[in-house]
Amino acid sequence: MAVRVGVLGATGAVGQRLIQLLEPHPDFEIAALTASASSAGKSYQRAAKWRVDSPIPESVAEMTVTDTDPDAVPGDVDLLFSSLPSSVGAEVEPAFCEAGYVLSSNSSNARMADDVPLVIPEVNGDHLDLLEVQRDERGWDGALVKNPNCSTITFVPTLAAITDFGLERVHVATLQAVSGAGYDGVSSMEIIDNAIPYIGSEEDKLETESRKLLGSFDGASLSHDDVEVAASCNRIPTIDGHLENIWVETSDELTVDDAKAAMESYSSLDLRSSPDQLIHVFDAPDRPQPRLDRTRGDGMAVSAGGFRESTFGLQYNCLAHNTLRGAAGASVLNGELLLENGYL
Amino acid sequence: MAVRVGVLGATGAVGQRLIQLLEPHPDFEIAALTASASSAGKSYQRAAKWRVDSPIPESVAEMTVTDTDPDAVPGDVDLLFSSLPSSVGAEVEPAFCEAGYVLSSNSSNARMADDVPLVIPEVNGDHLDLLEVQRDERGWDGALVKNPNCSTITFVPTLAAITDFGLERVHVATLQAVSGAGYDGVSSMEIIDNAIPYIGSEEDKLETESRKLLGSFDGASLSHDDVEVAASCNRIPTIDGHLENIWVETSDELTVDDAKAAMESYSSLDLRSSPDQLIHVFDAPDRPQPRLDRTRGDGMAVSAGGFRESTFGLQYNCLAHNTLRGAAGASVLNGELLLENGYL
Amino acid sequence: MAVRVGVLGATGAVGQRLIQLLEPHPDFEIAALTASASSAGKSYQRAAKWRVDSPIPESVAEMTVTDTDPDAVPGDVDLLFSSLPSSVGAEVEPAFCEAGYVLSSNSSNARMADDVPLVIPEVNGDHLDLLEVQRDERGWDGALVKNPNCSTITFVPTLAAITDFGLERVHVATLQAVSGAGYDGVSSMEIIDNAIPYIGSEEDKLETESRKLLGSFDGASLSHDDVEVAASCNRIPTIDGHLENIWVETSDELTVDDAKAAMESYSSLDLRSSPDQLIHVFDAPDRPQPRLDRTRGDGMAVSAGGFRESTFGLQYNCLAHNTLRGAAGASVLNGELLLENGYL
Amino acid sequence: MAVRVGVLGATGAVGQRLIQLLEPHPDFEIAALTASASSAGKSYQRAAKWRVDSPIPESVAEMTVTDTDPDAVPGDVDLLFSSLPSSVGAEVEPAFCEAGYVLSSNSSNARMADDVPLVIPEVNGDHLDLLEVQRDERGWDGALVKNPNCSTITFVPTLAAITDFGLERVHVATLQAVSGAGYDGVSSMEIIDNAIPYIGSEEDKLETESRKLLGSFDGASLSHDDVEVAASCNRIPTIDGHLENIWVETSDELTVDDAKAAMESYSSLDLRSSPDQLIHVFDAPDRPQPRLDRTRGDGMAVSAGGFRESTFGLQYNCLAHNTLRGAAGASVLNGELLLENGYL
Repeated sequence: MAVRVGVLGATGAVGQRLIQLLEPHPDFEIAALTASASSAGKSYQRAAKWRVDSPIPESVAEMTVTDTDPDAVPGDVDLLFSSLPSSVGAEVEPAFCEAGYVLSSNSSNARMADDVPLVIPEVNGDHLDLLEVQRDERGWDGALVKNPNCSTITFVPTLAAITDFGLERVHVATLQAVSGAGYDGVSSMEIIDNAIPYIGSEEDKLETESRKLLGSFDGASLSHDDVEVAASCNRIPTIDGHLENIWVETSDELTVDDAKAAMESYSSLDLRSSPDQLIHVFDAPDRPQPRLDRTRGDGMAVSAGGFRESTFGLQYNCLAHNTLRGAAGASVLNGELLLENGYL
Repeated sequence: MAVRVGVLGATGAVGQRLIQLLEPHPDFEIAALTASASSAGKSYQRAAKWRVDSPIPESVAEMTVTDTDPDAVPGDVDLLFSSLPSSVGAEVEPAFCEAGYVLSSNSSNARMADDVPLVIPEVNGDHLDLLEVQRDERGWDGALVKNPNCSTITFVPTLAAITDFGLERVHVATLQAVSGAGYDGVSSMEIIDNAIPYIGSEEDKLETESRKLLGSFDGASLSHDDVEVAASCNRIPTIDGHLENIWVETSDELTVDDAKAAMESYSSLDLRSSPDQLIHVFDAPDRPQPRLDRTRGDGMAVSAGGFRESTFGLQYNCLAHNTLRGAAGASVLNGELLLENGYL
Repeated sequence: MAVRVGVLGATGAVGQRLIQLLEPHPDFEIAALTASASSAGKSYQRAAKWRVDSPIPESVAEMTVTDTDPDAVPGDVDLLFSSLPSSVGAEVEPAFCEAGYVLSSNSSNARMADDVPLVIPEVNGDHLDLLEVQRDERGWDGALVKNPNCSTITFVPTLAAITDFGLERVHVATLQAVSGAGYDGVSSMEIIDNAIPYIGSEEDKLETESRKLLGSFDGASLSHDDVEVAASCNRIPTIDGHLENIWVETSDELTVDDAKAAMESYSSLDLRSSPDQLIHVFDAPDRPQPRLDRTRGDGMAVSAGGFRESTFGLQYNCLAHNTLRGAAGASVLNGELLLENGYL
Repeated sequence: MAVRVGVLGATGAVGQRLIQLLEPHPDFEIAALTASASSAGKSYQRAAKWRVDSPIPESVAEMTVTDTDPDAVPGDVDLLFSSLPSSVGAEVEPAFCEAGYVLSSNSSNARMADDVPLVIPEVNGDHLDLLEVQRDERGWDGALVKNPNCSTITFVPTLAAITDFGLERVHVATLQAVSGAGYDGVSSMEIIDNAIPYIGSEEDKLETESRKLLGSFDGASLSHDDVEVAASCNRIPTIDGHLENIWVETSDELTVDDAKAAMESYSSLDLRSSPDQLIHVFDAPDRPQPRLDRTRGDGMAVSAGGFRESTFGLQYNCLAHNTLRGAAGASVLNGELLLENGYL
């Protein structure tokens, strides 16, 4: 029987992607949609300007959008996917948890909190049990799990695959798609025939979230990995797909062949949204490319290529679909992990 | 009285930019245009598909294009600007030099040869005197000077400004415009809504040319700088302007303020094409941007911004117009330096 | 049992799309791939630079490409899909037909020949029987059927839906995607931040092919419709999807509601590649849009919207995916029609 | 001595272009900048996010922005350029005129009012004297002159050049740049790899403004031309430059040569911003193109090409820079005409 779920912040870009993924999902049934006060009371169809490249699901079109308030969400909803703006998320997510809801959230607030698991299931699914600590400390019936930033999700799986070589220093330069900023986040006047070498707070997210994700959980607390990461972030005129250039220095020797073998054999999971092959490794030096490779594994795989022994350590490029693997899909995957691990 | 000049490879993208710059130039007078055999004998207008955003100069439209052969170029031409494909350049440039012509070349062949000066006038104009060694060794009446690759030119001036801090390690990720590949170099199917994390041989050029440019010439031979450089190159959907993300580690402490002050005060030259201000330093974190900033100093300035103390050393971004400062303008500037230093 | 098929001109943009469609097709089995002499003898994987956004099918990767010559294609192949350049097609297609092969061709040669059916199955499938006349006249065992130009296919179904109102005059302005010109047809320098108001011979194709498609076949000969069509064609920076602005003047009054009802109820067919709904009619004035709507019906539907009573007659916009409904998919659909009608 | 001028709505896209044009203008001196209440009191530099591709003029950077209110503008300012949103313009422009200011306005409000001259100086400069009627009727010391919509300005000069042939019916399809919608008017998610076949109210503007511009003024009242115009408008991914496809049917025969000759010889004016050649006529069938041709005549010329005898009358394409000739430059030109005709 399908779990009844809701979407907090259902009208935005990630909210629409969540609906696109959840509507046909066999384990989940959409039972609640929330948005800001100005949308509450309207049908979803009227509240949202649907702009995904598949038609709006009929079952959702006429659902009534409610306020983003625990009292407005039916009590028999078990799991909420949150794509709220972080300022809103910071305010209302704890209230939902306190009211007993389990949240799989894409919002950036609280990602670095000590008792909030930040999870990519294939990488650090074991961190999910930090929820026990969270519930103890906060006295919540509900729970709050986060997925990382879209640009963090892109490169961390590739690092996770080579941790045995002793990660020491990582440089990452990102070429990020406009969808990462939401529908109205980047105007066309800003980005056509252009690139913007700045995305507010983004570099810090890559540098800190990656260490938390690669850290270890001993059942009581989480320690962050001590790999050092330096990030430089750019917005470019692509719709979907974040491409990243990586240099990694390791304590043990890491050859191109070692890295490719490690990534190719890195395990995926059996969760419904997890791809068969987590990391696609390309031999062609000019791949992966956003438009050609972002939909691998239904947009849930990561791709890597361009491996080269660099002046400093190893150099390669990686890519993931930022609104699927990097946002809506990441939250759905965490929802599946919550279900499998008995948190619902 | 204007020096009579010619353009080798006059029909291509850089060739057209050279003509755009040379035609109104007070010190130079276009007297010869060469191209491949299939164009020889045609008027320039018919041989070239003119695609620059200003009309084809009238004085050039009806000039007859000749073969790229020393015998086909009038003897009273003193200076030749070369934008030949590197394979052609490798073959014919020495023949022109032997025939007594002085060449300011943008072609990539021979850039790393021991007796060929690779010059950005504001950075290492003193290397030009390596031409004495060249003439001695090769027995040429002519001479061959090269400007670096467009992506090298973009970041080397910013490094030159901070050499006093002891450059040790540099990481550079490039976001390069399509014009760098010539008119038909990148198809629209390849790059719209996309990025390509690979440009053949480009990374090697940044890594090696930068060391030669920052090296020192003692009057007899050139020693390369020992800064270590690692480059990762990407093509993105912009028309003109290469943007680069830089991380630099230095032996002495280098603060954001130090770097900005050093770049802002870095000297330009009095050559006609040299900009008043060589490096424009931005305080706004999201600048420079290709479309907004590439034409600073008539496309001959470099811009820098986004300074930040990084996990490893200093981080910043820089930008230059790749077909002006990075190619045609660079060759013209070297022509001006040759003139000023009495090589014509 | 699947029909054994081949692709003539298998390495190009449309050839790759054909393979993408044919490989999983239950009625067809790919048994031959041809290309130019320089590719013959190579594996398909080596001969083609695969650039479709799904991986190259395994069953095809190692097939050996042959010359585009009837003798090089196995005799048990029944149906050939042709995406040859029109100059090559004009030369070799008749030879294949004479050798007994049935060709469903996307090449523009011979489209307007009196005895060659030009077919969009849902619009004028009955024209296929012109093949009887063709075989009689030419003495072929094989046969040659053509699909129209991609820009013609986009608007003709919408006109077909309203022929009862007495089509008199049609103006059509096209905004065409770059994929219509093949992988290297439009360089990025030509089209980024730009539009090109010219596509060689394209306007003539819309003006003449549309009349042939809307004409009637009496069992012996084909008469063209006498609607007058004026076309103006533009290339714009989109990857896939041709958008067209239409004004149509009719002898009978045609209201917005009439037109929408007629298009919405226009019948599709039961062929495998025919969409459930042939024409999607939008109420939103700003739809259809290429990126949002081109994949309706797996890229085989046509969309229409923006209906408005104009100064002259009715005005609306339509859209189709140019390499699916407009090229490769059109040829596959004609192949399905040939199969259903017993021509194989 | 320079006339003291102001800019109403100085912080927007057209406002910034106005400042770029007015600051170096020998006849005008910027003395007032207004914006919405939230900007009033700030320096222009802080109030506006300057995004033009030349640095913000120093003389303007520190000017204080005031409310858009007649009382806030110094009394010695004679001429105001207005680029207010039309809803704001409708409200406040009459108040400025009543307070004695002469307004050259780009805002769309009141363009079709009987006593408001809608002027393109080279086309219908004589309509300016409608201001006498306006002043009489409204009792204003000031005056209000409008320039047409950017997409109207693009094609009307080409029609004006051929009025002698008896204009009857015109179809126009537009391919409009994103800058026409202001800096945040079109999001990148909406337009990259896409086109939008709808711009609110735009078609009506082309259809009605063109008739007013081509009308005649008898000293007392204005009669509109009776040419019938049908427009279809599209937004495409270009930064600047509106391209338009035109079909025109005339009562007298109009050949391609006639049209080209008439446009080529159509007179420009001696106003400072008027280009030497008003209409550039191209023989190349693929010109004009936005990126290559929009800056002809410093962005104040119109280009035409692609002439062809169509199924119905004559067909051609035209182009103008939408924020220069089509907006800010149009207002400045009207300001120059006001000055020359003694209205200041």
